[in-house]
Amino acid sequence: MDDLEIDAVAEADVEEPVLIEGLPGVGHVGTLAAEHLVEELDAETTLVRRLYSREFPPQVSVEEGVAELTCAKLHAISPEAGRDMLVLTGDHQAQSNAGHYALTEAFLDVAEEFDVSEIYALGGVPTGELIEEYDVIGAVSDADLREELEELGVEFREDEPAGGIVGVSGLLLGLGGRRGFDAACLMGETSGYLVDPKSARAILELLEDRLDLEVGYDSLDERAEEMEEVIGKIQEMEQQQQSMELPSDDDLRYIG
Amino acid sequence: MDDLEIDAVAEADVEEPVLIEGLPGVGHVGTLAAEHLVEELDAETTLVRRLYSREFPPQVSVEEGVAELTCAKLHAISPEAGRDMLVLTGDHQAQSNAGHYALTEAFLDVAEEFDVSEIYALGGVPTGELIEEYDVIGAVSDADLREELEELGVEFREDEPAGGIVGVSGLLLGLGGRRGFDAACLMGETSGYLVDPKSARAILELLEDRLDLEVGYDSLDERAEEMEEVIGKIQEMEQQQQSMELPSDDDLRYIG
Amino acid sequence: MDDLEIDAVAEADVEEPVLIEGLPGVGHVGTLAAEHLVEELDAETTLVRRLYSREFPPQVSVEEGVAELTCAKLHAISPEAGRDMLVLTGDHQAQSNAGHYALTEAFLDVAEEFDVSEIYALGGVPTGELIEEYDVIGAVSDADLREELEELGVEFREDEPAGGIVGVSGLLLGLGGRRGFDAACLMGETSGYLVDPKSARAILELLEDRLDLEVGYDSLDERAEEMEEVIGKIQEMEQQQQSMELPSDDDLRYIG
Amino acid sequence: MDDLEIDAVAEADVEEPVLIEGLPGVGHVGTLAAEHLVEELDAETTLVRRLYSREFPPQVSVEEGVAELTCAKLHAISPEAGRDMLVLTGDHQAQSNAGHYALTEAFLDVAEEFDVSEIYALGGVPTGELIEEYDVIGAVSDADLREELEELGVEFREDEPAGGIVGVSGLLLGLGGRRGFDAACLMGETSGYLVDPKSARAILELLEDRLDLEVGYDSLDERAEEMEEVIGKIQEMEQQQQSMELPSDDDLRYIG
Repeated sequence: MDDLEIDAVAEADVEEPVLIEGLPGVGHVGTLAAEHLVEELDAETTLVRRLYSREFPPQVSVEEGVAELTCAKLHAISPEAGRDMLVLTGDHQAQSNAGHYALTEAFLDVAEEFDVSEIYALGGVPTGELIEEYDVIGAVSDADLREELEELGVEFREDEPAGGIVGVSGLLLGLGGRRGFDAACLMGETSGYLVDPKSARAILELLEDRLDLEVGYDSLDERAEEMEEVIGKIQEMEQQQQSMELPSDDDLRYIG
Repeated sequence: MDDLEIDAVAEADVEEPVLIEGLPGVGHVGTLAAEHLVEELDAETTLVRRLYSREFPPQVSVEEGVAELTCAKLHAISPEAGRDMLVLTGDHQAQSNAGHYALTEAFLDVAEEFDVSEIYALGGVPTGELIEEYDVIGAVSDADLREELEELGVEFREDEPAGGIVGVSGLLLGLGGRRGFDAACLMGETSGYLVDPKSARAILELLEDRLDLEVGYDSLDERAEEMEEVIGKIQEMEQQQQSMELPSDDDLRYIG
Repeated sequence: MDDLEIDAVAEADVEEPVLIEGLPGVGHVGTLAAEHLVEELDAETTLVRRLYSREFPPQVSVEEGVAELTCAKLHAISPEAGRDMLVLTGDHQAQSNAGHYALTEAFLDVAEEFDVSEIYALGGVPTGELIEEYDVIGAVSDADLREELEELGVEFREDEPAGGIVGVSGLLLGLGGRRGFDAACLMGETSGYLVDPKSARAILELLEDRLDLEVGYDSLDERAEEMEEVIGKIQEMEQQQQSMELPSDDDLRYIG
Repeated sequence: MDDLEIDAVAEADVEEPVLIEGLPGVGHVGTLAAEHLVEELDAETTLVRRLYSREFPPQVSVEEGVAELTCAKLHAISPEAGRDMLVLTGDHQAQSNAGHYALTEAFLDVAEEFDVSEIYALGGVPTGELIEEYDVIGAVSDADLREELEELGVEFREDEPAGGIVGVSGLLLGLGGRRGFDAACLMGETSGYLVDPKSARAILELLEDRLDLEVGYDSLDERAEEMEEVIGKIQEMEQQQQSMELPSDDDLRYIG
């Protein structure tokens, strides 16, 4: 295998699709959102590419005894209603600084191959506290995109996200913008302590509007309810301990 | 030296051998098993290749004052009974993520050179507790292999190993599978705290069946008895301390 | 994007400019000084080059919702009085050892393109205590430069800086010297605990003399006053605690 | 600068010289020994090569204000009595695993250029306790060398050094041996806590015999006396504390 290899698993007839990226990150928000699209629109979805790279961790996942080499997957979706999509999912980010650049360039190459001109990188932005109302923060490769997304309800704030955007999501804007893509990052607010299906739903509702999609949320809401129960139990335990402090990172991080 | 160099130490007349990998890992199970094969079948074994790589740690081992550069070794075995084998041993894994990919590709290149079509990666899977009955967990590159191995007694479990398989063993399945090899990983259950010759024997007995080999176990059983004594002493000390907890990692890790 | 790419944003008519480097470092002294030059001489400044590299962290900064890929910037300044300058600024250092070499070589390539023969790397040297009088310590690529800079008031001390000079500033001397540039590093003394505009001013005053510049300091003095207030409050708090110890690193590091 | 560059500073008429390596390591033993040779035989020594590499830390050392880029230096020595030598010194080891391989190959290339066939890598082997009698442990690239060195008093022990030999010293044996050099590592026993001129002298006395050299030890003995004083003071302080334990690593490491 070369440093990076792309397997053409199948071809699909998508027309000027948008690229939607949901690799792992804060609260698994981007992953939950992207995988929900793939599952909900299963009948209209084709797995078209697998991307293997030495920048991914050197490992296989094992399901029912059968090993699968770590990769990123590109799913082509032609929904009955709305824009065609390429959805990028995977279990891992790159393992080195230069690797993020290399993978992002590869993703952009595939995007060009499929005539993509518009990119949505999905993720979470940690607030450090449990969320009541799920705002979605935006960042764009080009100032012109900002107004269109603001009209949909995406929030643009002066100094957020404070430390910039790191990893593939950030580079899709930075490198994508340099190549002439219209790229936006949609970041659902999330505590940062828990896998957050509600934050994922907040992003997807905006995408539905933007891309004229129709998406059901039953499975995502179910996971959200499961998480509510977890949170409820934790809060109960806390009250029993007569303490109103937030659960510590150690107790809560990525229970899901 | 280039990034990776292969010295042809000798040639050997092996017929459609299987590749058996036993690089260092959990409980040294894979190493113990692979080295036991080489020692037991010494008379029918030829060291055929040494693989040097900048991915190995920059060091030499010293025995009786003579230095040997860190390498992996490939032994060709033509046993009186059973399938011919290529056995891969070494003191080190690669030291970087990309290095695991590079070394595995090199091992597969050599496997192709020797007409290998079947690969067994040997290792241990940590359970966190002392083992009574030594099960062997399997993972395969292709679902078809699963049934054949299940018949031999290899266990396939829904979610094991939980975190996938990391390093050369995992990549032999992932990269080997992509190249068309039939690859299986055989992982002996082991506490994870101790060098485990019994776990190694459990794997070898399955391999004996699979490859129609005849292997003696005297030396491995001796090491197992030595380990039993170590465990016995630890348990005695613990009882004296009137404590039934498992010995801590610090006390027990890789005593051997 | 290749490992390193240079975007020619604009051209500028600078004559035998000196290169002034102010990448992040101790007390942000170099950054403050270089950015102050760019802001004060805004009307005579043109952004001429952006340098992108896989050695920079894989991230974008976001301002008002618009993302900018991490880069270093080269500003051409043709001031009314004094020497023409190329000023190098950026938010990040390279993220690996080899990266510092690669970036420095790229900066020197651009310097050659603009006919630079003289380089000033600006930075801070930590003293571990609050500074009363802001001395500037020098280091040069060639002994001949030393006397000229000593006459301006730059101090050269036998064993300072003790650990040598690390990163781009150091390599501009080391690699620049090998290529035949006259390179000097001007390091303002600074506590190391705080962003230090006064240390930046001390360097700039020496550069004014050296390059016959005229620079105003109002904005830098304002930041210095803000820092004074911060320091004052901390000292007050300390006195209230009846303690005369220096504030700890955790309390003070890079408040700005 | 390329990844690795060699500046030919001067040429020298050395005849079949031996290569002596003394890069930094345990107790600075190798460095002290190699630099002592260069200083003692100053009149017969020529600096012939500087080796620069991106594998060295990205920094310059500064002496009297003048910067010098991190490098390794090769000194040619044609002593009045004894074998010609190439002595390799430097302030740093490589900063990555692969870097040790790359630098060692470069050193061997230069050795070949100068018709070297015999290599002595000098270093220290830590014992964890203050040394009374300074033995020198050996390791060789080829078993034939062992007897010759044993006759000189070099000790070869079954399992020492326990963890093998890491870094350039080890690879000079490993890679050097593969290229056909006769390479030996001479490791002076040393506590590991202190810079150890006595251990360096023990090695040099063996080299004197081996290469028919005549070396004075006044300056090395002076440093040894200084170290004795340091040790004496520490032991005094310890006795005052009515404690006979060894000084801790933190107190003593590399006082020199």
